[in-house]
Amino acid sequence: MSHLAVIGLGIMGLPMARNLVAAGHVVVGYDHGDARMAALEEGGGRRAASIAEAVAGADVVITMLPDSPQVEEVVLGPGGVLEHATAGVIHIDMSSIRPDVAVRVAQECRARGLRPLDAPVSGGERGAIDGTLSIMLGGEDADVAEVRPLLEAVGRTIVHVGPNGSGQTVKAANQLIVGGTIQLVAEAIVFLEAYGVDTQAAVEVLAGGLAGNRILDLKAQGMLDREFAPGFRIDLHHKDLGIVTSAAREAGVAIPVGALVAQLMGSARANGDGGLDHSALLRGVERMSGRELR
Amino acid sequence: MSHLAVIGLGIMGLPMARNLVAAGHVVVGYDHGDARMAALEEGGGRRAASIAEAVAGADVVITMLPDSPQVEEVVLGPGGVLEHATAGVIHIDMSSIRPDVAVRVAQECRARGLRPLDAPVSGGERGAIDGTLSIMLGGEDADVAEVRPLLEAVGRTIVHVGPNGSGQTVKAANQLIVGGTIQLVAEAIVFLEAYGVDTQAAVEVLAGGLAGNRILDLKAQGMLDREFAPGFRIDLHHKDLGIVTSAAREAGVAIPVGALVAQLMGSARANGDGGLDHSALLRGVERMSGRELR
Amino acid sequence: MSHLAVIGLGIMGLPMARNLVAAGHVVVGYDHGDARMAALEEGGGRRAASIAEAVAGADVVITMLPDSPQVEEVVLGPGGVLEHATAGVIHIDMSSIRPDVAVRVAQECRARGLRPLDAPVSGGERGAIDGTLSIMLGGEDADVAEVRPLLEAVGRTIVHVGPNGSGQTVKAANQLIVGGTIQLVAEAIVFLEAYGVDTQAAVEVLAGGLAGNRILDLKAQGMLDREFAPGFRIDLHHKDLGIVTSAAREAGVAIPVGALVAQLMGSARANGDGGLDHSALLRGVERMSGRELR
Amino acid sequence: MSHLAVIGLGIMGLPMARNLVAAGHVVVGYDHGDARMAALEEGGGRRAASIAEAVAGADVVITMLPDSPQVEEVVLGPGGVLEHATAGVIHIDMSSIRPDVAVRVAQECRARGLRPLDAPVSGGERGAIDGTLSIMLGGEDADVAEVRPLLEAVGRTIVHVGPNGSGQTVKAANQLIVGGTIQLVAEAIVFLEAYGVDTQAAVEVLAGGLAGNRILDLKAQGMLDREFAPGFRIDLHHKDLGIVTSAAREAGVAIPVGALVAQLMGSARANGDGGLDHSALLRGVERMSGRELR
Repeated sequence: MSHLAVIGLGIMGLPMARNLVAAGHVVVGYDHGDARMAALEEGGGRRAASIAEAVAGADVVITMLPDSPQVEEVVLGPGGVLEHATAGVIHIDMSSIRPDVAVRVAQECRARGLRPLDAPVSGGERGAIDGTLSIMLGGEDADVAEVRPLLEAVGRTIVHVGPNGSGQTVKAANQLIVGGTIQLVAEAIVFLEAYGVDTQAAVEVLAGGLAGNRILDLKAQGMLDREFAPGFRIDLHHKDLGIVTSAAREAGVAIPVGALVAQLMGSARANGDGGLDHSALLRGVERMSGRELR
Repeated sequence: MSHLAVIGLGIMGLPMARNLVAAGHVVVGYDHGDARMAALEEGGGRRAASIAEAVAGADVVITMLPDSPQVEEVVLGPGGVLEHATAGVIHIDMSSIRPDVAVRVAQECRARGLRPLDAPVSGGERGAIDGTLSIMLGGEDADVAEVRPLLEAVGRTIVHVGPNGSGQTVKAANQLIVGGTIQLVAEAIVFLEAYGVDTQAAVEVLAGGLAGNRILDLKAQGMLDREFAPGFRIDLHHKDLGIVTSAAREAGVAIPVGALVAQLMGSARANGDGGLDHSALLRGVERMSGRELR
Repeated sequence: MSHLAVIGLGIMGLPMARNLVAAGHVVVGYDHGDARMAALEEGGGRRAASIAEAVAGADVVITMLPDSPQVEEVVLGPGGVLEHATAGVIHIDMSSIRPDVAVRVAQECRARGLRPLDAPVSGGERGAIDGTLSIMLGGEDADVAEVRPLLEAVGRTIVHVGPNGSGQTVKAANQLIVGGTIQLVAEAIVFLEAYGVDTQAAVEVLAGGLAGNRILDLKAQGMLDREFAPGFRIDLHHKDLGIVTSAAREAGVAIPVGALVAQLMGSARANGDGGLDHSALLRGVERMSGRELR
Repeated sequence: MSHLAVIGLGIMGLPMARNLVAAGHVVVGYDHGDARMAALEEGGGRRAASIAEAVAGADVVITMLPDSPQVEEVVLGPGGVLEHATAGVIHIDMSSIRPDVAVRVAQECRARGLRPLDAPVSGGERGAIDGTLSIMLGGEDADVAEVRPLLEAVGRTIVHVGPNGSGQTVKAANQLIVGGTIQLVAEAIVFLEAYGVDTQAAVEVLAGGLAGNRILDLKAQGMLDREFAPGFRIDLHHKDLGIVTSAAREAGVAIPVGALVAQLMGSARANGDGGLDHSALLRGVERMSGRELR
């Protein structure tokens, strides 16, 4: 049983915190939203009035925040984690942020005696609620080993992928593949519809062969039905594709398809679809093909 | 038990014909390659000296040929299937060809009293040998119903996707998704390698989440090891992407990612990789990223 | 003074024929449109009742037709040029068609004793009327030398670019550059507008530097004003980009930007802009950027 | 006659400073390179030991620096322009930097009483030496009017394109068009070479028509000859395409072709061509087309 601080109790952070409570840990949460902290208390956790209070006495500090600037502020900023956590504490940043920022945050944590891990997740709100997230860990072997039992309360696939920052790098690659796969399925569906094919049957057979993928399994039906309630919003995926294109650029790696998908995701957002599920990339293919949007 | 003609005994056609023999059918094969016909005889089939002889007395004629021109020649050409098959015979073209050619071939067959089906497959040589192919059927309900038991000897997923030509359209969509997915996985792997991530672990976690797909399951290990023995050759996938880009163009459907992948597949071929497995798209990403090819 | 047959009296062919009349040649025209032949007669030419009649007695036969199939039919088909032209006659095909078709047509012409040239033009209806077209010639030196004086009646830049088919290859390259440049200028304009820049001033300064091109000189004003009266229609440019992408594919040349522009041109057409000037690619950038179309 | 400070005496800044001396102005330069300051003195300018000394007494301060971080440091940083320039002084930043940084620098300058202008240039080292640069000005009308006579010593086309930041936005658009045009010309050349066309003649005819552009005029010959001595280096153009893709992303403008060209420019750099002229994009087309590099 650990004493945990969880900072950031949003769509992902809150159910994760509640799963950690359910696994028997002491969980002290902090968020600027009062309702969110109340929801944590309902789930058996405790609320803190500040990051300082949340971190006080914790063995492990978890952050789950929207983007790189928030992580920098909450961890490195005045009144942040680094100021208040004591040496030896493990800091797990489970946000999805830029790998270079993750590396820098980890360096500063380590310089202050903390033990940093980056641990972004995949699996969405559903996975957070069910405790079935995939977790990509970057950091030291010993630290990973120590937190693994704890992370089993929130995730099912927990993989150590390399030194600090590697978790974020793998998450970036994940978002590249997911975004690209949605676009491919969208192009295929609009193509099949244009030819009057039985798309329901077609999706079944596509899913059963070498073209098979999780998007066909989980999202193709919604795409056929034009149901785009999120799920994972285009706005967020747009942020993530910004991360992967700029990290690839930094490393001198050509991702021509990834860069094109980033343009198409941006186009979806510019057309007002930012709040829809990322499978709404289909609407972009329809727009480009002059087909009436349903 | 049916009396079948199988025309085209190549890498795919031969094991399919042998599986049909094993299922108890009378199979008469024809191919211009003597060794191939001998191999069919070893498997319990019979050889014919001409298309005419193969087709004589058959209830069902199966063609399994490399590309559109061969299908046109074998089915519609002088001395071909259409000249020799009697009214009521079912013709199943299991080749992967252009949907518009499939439609035209079907029309001419129907005009002569034949019952045409297009039935391209997915699953490769392995699937042909094991009888586990995915089969995408275009044609009339009654004809599909009649051949389904027979096709169960060669395929596991057998789906009727629409009128004649639809099987080819779905196959084209299949190749679009497969080619694009390989490219996405290739971009992700080179990106991860550039950052020194543990790619073995990364592939495991990617495969377990929303990015999961059959390429990660079946081909990523070969890509990490730079083992590109086919499998399905880049030359063939290049042909297929030619089909899908031109069919999409014909229908006024935008497939920006598909068209870019077609360029990259063509680039792989132009660099002498046409005989490698399509997963060798990875080498193109390495070339574009200035990384040393292994 | 030559005796010329001109087959195809459309938007381009008619003014070209009239310029040839004005230069003192005997011009016998043929077209399936009666009004077009009447217009040639008004300009001093003569009309023929058939290709046979037009070709009879001509030293030079010019064809100016919409696309590859029409050229094949008019030149090689029954009742066509090849059946009626006598040995030694020069055949100049000024249509814009597929280079491989141009090569085949030339081979068949040569086999029958004709002297074939391919001579597609650039410069549009304006250039045809003013006699200021750019002409790209493929064929033998002697034949080019012989027709050069004659072509000076219709074009200003007349360049021999290689053996038969080369004219069409250069025309294809021309259309690749023109289409791509329009798209680049369109992306730049929408980008500048989004930032509230004085686009009028910006176009002036862009045109004056290394970014300078004929699209900025001739079409940017129309793009700023959203005036897209053709000019050269998107439908025709779409046909031409089909030629260049398939010729590049055939030759194993990667044209990633060309292929993407072809998708965008197809998208413009699918959105109903096929009858607008090709500078209406701007509307596609606006659509993708979620901006209101004016 | 003005009293000018010029900070940054590199390939561009030095000849510009010398042209300003030649036009009769008092020019005090500052650079961290001693040889560069010596070269200014040879040209009749004066050297300063610090930014403070250069700026002291100047009516106009010109900065000409490599990238955004240097501008931020030199203008806003400790010991920088802002600390030492007196109210009313005009600051002209002629560097090519991110438009958003230009806006922020201008705001800070204005807050301190300075009169900021952004004035990036096009035309390269040649244009800097000859005083024939194109200059894109962002800022207030009155300030532009005041510096115009002075700028005529270094540029030929001097255009006011909007409020602060607009100069950089237009420069970004300029680099988008230039990079894309080079790629288009490169694709066309490799395509023409593959078909054995007389490329020398082809370039002439392409340059004369609607495909005509400054790259065909100035760089195509070098591309045909595979002479890629800079000129403007790929490394710098890579930086600029990073600016334009991220500014377009910020504004929600889709630049699919621009983004692809950015990938290809990055690929050229990753292949070790960063020090070559940007026309070496041709080598990337050759690599993708499997052609031997010369």
